[in-house]
Amino acid sequence: MADSELPTRPKPEETPAAAAEGAEGAETSKSASKNAAKKAAKEKAKAEKAAQRAAQEKAQAAVAAVDTAKDLYGPIPEFADVLPSLKFSEFTDAHYEQEVTVVARVDNARVQSAKLAFLMLRQQGQKVQAVIAAAEPISRQMVKYTGGLNVNSIVQVTGIVKKPEIPISSATLSHLEIHIRKVYMISEAAQMLPMQVKDAERPPPETTEEGPQVDADGAPIVTLKTRLDNRVIDLQTETSQAITWISSGVAELFSEYMIKSGSRWIFTPKLVGAATEGGSGVFEVKYFKRNAYLAQSPQLYKQMCIAGDMENVFEIAPVFRAEDSNTHRHLTEFAGLDFEKTFQSHYHEVLEFAENLLVFILTGLKERYKDQIATIQKSYPKAGDFKLPKDGKALRLNYMDGVALLKEAGVDVSEQERFENDFNTAMEKQLGQIIRDKYDTDFYVLDKFPMAVRPFYTKACPQDPTFSNSYDFFMRGEEIMSGAQRIHDIKELEESMRAKGLNPDQEGFEDYLNAFRQGCPPHAGGGLGLNRIVMFFLGLPNVRLTSLFPRDPQRLRP
Amino acid sequence: MADSELPTRPKPEETPAAAAEGAEGAETSKSASKNAAKKAAKEKAKAEKAAQRAAQEKAQAAVAAVDTAKDLYGPIPEFADVLPSLKFSEFTDAHYEQEVTVVARVDNARVQSAKLAFLMLRQQGQKVQAVIAAAEPISRQMVKYTGGLNVNSIVQVTGIVKKPEIPISSATLSHLEIHIRKVYMISEAAQMLPMQVKDAERPPPETTEEGPQVDADGAPIVTLKTRLDNRVIDLQTETSQAITWISSGVAELFSEYMIKSGSRWIFTPKLVGAATEGGSGVFEVKYFKRNAYLAQSPQLYKQMCIAGDMENVFEIAPVFRAEDSNTHRHLTEFAGLDFEKTFQSHYHEVLEFAENLLVFILTGLKERYKDQIATIQKSYPKAGDFKLPKDGKALRLNYMDGVALLKEAGVDVSEQERFENDFNTAMEKQLGQIIRDKYDTDFYVLDKFPMAVRPFYTKACPQDPTFSNSYDFFMRGEEIMSGAQRIHDIKELEESMRAKGLNPDQEGFEDYLNAFRQGCPPHAGGGLGLNRIVMFFLGLPNVRLTSLFPRDPQRLRP
Repeated sequence: MADSELPTRPKPEETPAAAAEGAEGAETSKSASKNAAKKAAKEKAKAEKAAQRAAQEKAQAAVAAVDTAKDLYGPIPEFADVLPSLKFSEFTDAHYEQEVTVVARVDNARVQSAKLAFLMLRQQGQKVQAVIAAAEPISRQMVKYTGGLNVNSIVQVTGIVKKPEIPISSATLSHLEIHIRKVYMISEAAQMLPMQVKDAERPPPETTEEGPQVDADGAPIVTLKTRLDNRVIDLQTETSQAITWISSGVAELFSEYMIKSGSRWIFTPKLVGAATEGGSGVFEVKYFKRNAYLAQSPQLYKQMCIAGDMENVFEIAPVFRAEDSNTHRHLTEFAGLDFEKTFQSHYHEVLEFAENLLVFILTGLKERYKDQIATIQKSYPKAGDFKLPKDGKALRLNYMDGVALLKEAGVDVSEQERFENDFNTAMEKQLGQIIRDKYDTDFYVLDKFPMAVRPFYTKACPQDPTFSNSYDFFMRGEEIMSGAQRIHDIKELEESMRAKGLNPDQEGFEDYLNAFRQGCPPHAGGGLGLNRIVMFFLGLPNVRLTSLFPRDPQRLRP
Repeated sequence: MADSELPTRPKPEETPAAAAEGAEGAETSKSASKNAAKKAAKEKAKAEKAAQRAAQEKAQAAVAAVDTAKDLYGPIPEFADVLPSLKFSEFTDAHYEQEVTVVARVDNARVQSAKLAFLMLRQQGQKVQAVIAAAEPISRQMVKYTGGLNVNSIVQVTGIVKKPEIPISSATLSHLEIHIRKVYMISEAAQMLPMQVKDAERPPPETTEEGPQVDADGAPIVTLKTRLDNRVIDLQTETSQAITWISSGVAELFSEYMIKSGSRWIFTPKLVGAATEGGSGVFEVKYFKRNAYLAQSPQLYKQMCIAGDMENVFEIAPVFRAEDSNTHRHLTEFAGLDFEKTFQSHYHEVLEFAENLLVFILTGLKERYKDQIATIQKSYPKAGDFKLPKDGKALRLNYMDGVALLKEAGVDVSEQERFENDFNTAMEKQLGQIIRDKYDTDFYVLDKFPMAVRPFYTKACPQDPTFSNSYDFFMRGEEIMSGAQRIHDIKELEESMRAKGLNPDQEGFEDYLNAFRQGCPPHAGGGLGLNRIVMFFLGLPNVRLTSLFPRDPQRLRP
């Protein structure tokens, strides 16, 4: 059978019986009228209606009596033995001519004629066509019911798997079709949905603002805002399904690598007593009779775990940033992947550990999530083209090498040469392109950032304290991780704080500094943003697409 | 060599040179005096002191000149090639008579004589003894330095591994001893510590209040409060090291089971727009120009993921509870392990999945963390005796079976029989004991709780709506998980909300309810508290021992 895609099905008419009941209800409410003539007329009308209704009911009962399929469709009976159902991904050639049961959403329903209707069924973005034809025991009523199902409802369909004469191009599984024998409603969707999954399948315009309503072909344009406002429907698209798998995969691969390395999984507090990491970017919480703050990162706590002799630790937890940044790459809450580790003789031991971590994650995504990447590529063409270093070893340059590459390309790097500023976003992107052209990789590391642009706990480079033992990781020219060797000597730490204008005696630093007063081994670490890894790996235009329910200064729902 | 445990080493005296300098400084500040005689006397004294100091310096230089070991100890040189160092856990018989390098904390340092000193070295709670004797090239100065090291400092020690004549009972590795050749300071601890690791090794009294200062043997008693106030030192004890491994293990085993089952790792927002789960237990956050709240659980969001066709999801994330409960088992922030899953025909599919999850975690802990459990058992004797069902299948009883068991034991269960109240804590514990005696297991499940005691989203039992398709999991008679089949039908859900006194039109429920209006498959799930699993598995007296940096209504630091 051919493609059954059609514009949204017209709404079913109100049944005559329901309309009559509605009218009756309205009459009754006016029964206080004193006019006897009116009353009599009403009584008469009422009697007529009752007779009408009785006749209708009789006719319906007669129809029902001859509905040979009355047990084969409708609401699923409460205590029904639900049949074992097949996933679309489990279909094989062996299923042809067999009876199967599937549970799926109605992606589209269409009555072709009184005797024929089509369903497009959807499971996690994958589509299969089903068809129903009136022929003993399938009744016309059952065909009408099936073709009139509300889009997005979840149904249990039993039928015979057939091979269509020509492949069904609108279905994901285009070489099969289910000939319906039974169809039961598991969860009925409302008739009107705020948006259709099929409209959300097309990538949104690259903006968070409301845009035009229809595209050049007259199809509705679903803006990112509408999508995110109705995120539950948006998650049902095959693109969202695939992206959420990639997010899951990053966390899975990160924890797998850390656990294999003997790292301990830690849970540090998100409610902290002082805004030690800078006041303006911190959310304030009412904590019983005082104030608390939401941790901007587990930085101080993971270092305290190292001081607590835990040697090698990692955390996967939300990170909160009260920055009023309304850009395509900022969220106020995101998933942080953090690690901290002691080393024996040089912080490059940890840097190499982190480089291998990223290579493991990015290679793992390509290997384990091939299908999802291919799906995403249909909407976001860059999804499949992320370049990894050919030899499996990360490219590592010094920060000043990056400055030199930009200078060669004619970029004004005078501020960078004076160590006044880190690269800005445009420079980072340009450097990313230069490195891609020169080294054929989208993932690389810059080491030895100037001390002036790094936080107080960063260890200065012993050979040249203008620089520091710190590094950033980049994907497609955008930063996904910042890390460094940390100062473990209390005197050096206090001096560094003062040099950065911080007061070591300020409330909130005491516990952190005591950890070093009591002896702490040399260590280094880093913090990754899961959402940014997903965004830049897939080349998505907006970080919100990588978050299930994104949070930004404007958005606190759903 | 014999046990070298000694009370804390006396503080080293101030060096004469330093004392003299101090006196000089004090004099100088008084130099405004006009009395000439005094001035002359001062000048004379000053000259005498200068001569004295010169003589001292000369003597010191002479000593240093003859210090044959001057390059073998002291601060580690900045650009030293740090030697590859051995973990205590890597020691084998092959190391006897070999030179090794270790990096470890000084657990204790003691000068025996001018020619002999002992160090007890500690790595993550494990202890090894080292000894230093003056004999070419080891000098008396080096012996004095070594025996005078501040406790808790981190040192790099190189020496020959010897087999002691009698085992060193105070060391964990009692059959070896390191004969020191070099000792360098990596991180010096302050002379005074707020508590000693060895004092924190003894279990705290079962209270958060300050108690007596010394025990019957005169050893300092370290209360839980002192321990938690100085948590970084407390984490260095072998007991804390082992407990933090068990916590890590629970998260590892949970994620491993979920990933193997095809579950997707999700990250739901902790910042939410409305206090939908009950106002009093929710923390309020200042969110730019409005208020947000900290999610008390991912309940509504994980259900929305299911409505978003994600089928099988899990989350590992902090859970926030603004309850002013100051008990041994309540925290205001803890690690939540959540899952939600669709099923085909009956919620018992998910219940069985969850039972197997717990059996997997608890069995996995016993297998993978044998050593840690044995260590914890030294302080907390119950740690090793947790009983798992012999056949590897969880014991499942109905709630009313539990009521009957308590009634048999003479407990007043009249409120429970009237479905007015769930069990209280004392009843749960008693039931735990009854079940342990009768069924020989510390882990069990109660199914079919009365609807009256469960939240609005719980599915009533279709056969008898007095009860519900909900379950609690228990370890040693204490609840570690609550779960249920959830209502997936919008009408049923709205009715249930109203029956519980909630208004479905209240702000904040809209997005949640829309998820069901748009069709949602039948599903069930549960939420576990990681800290409670650790606490009850190990039989610990206080949940704070299972948190790295616990948070309760009184505690926001460290």
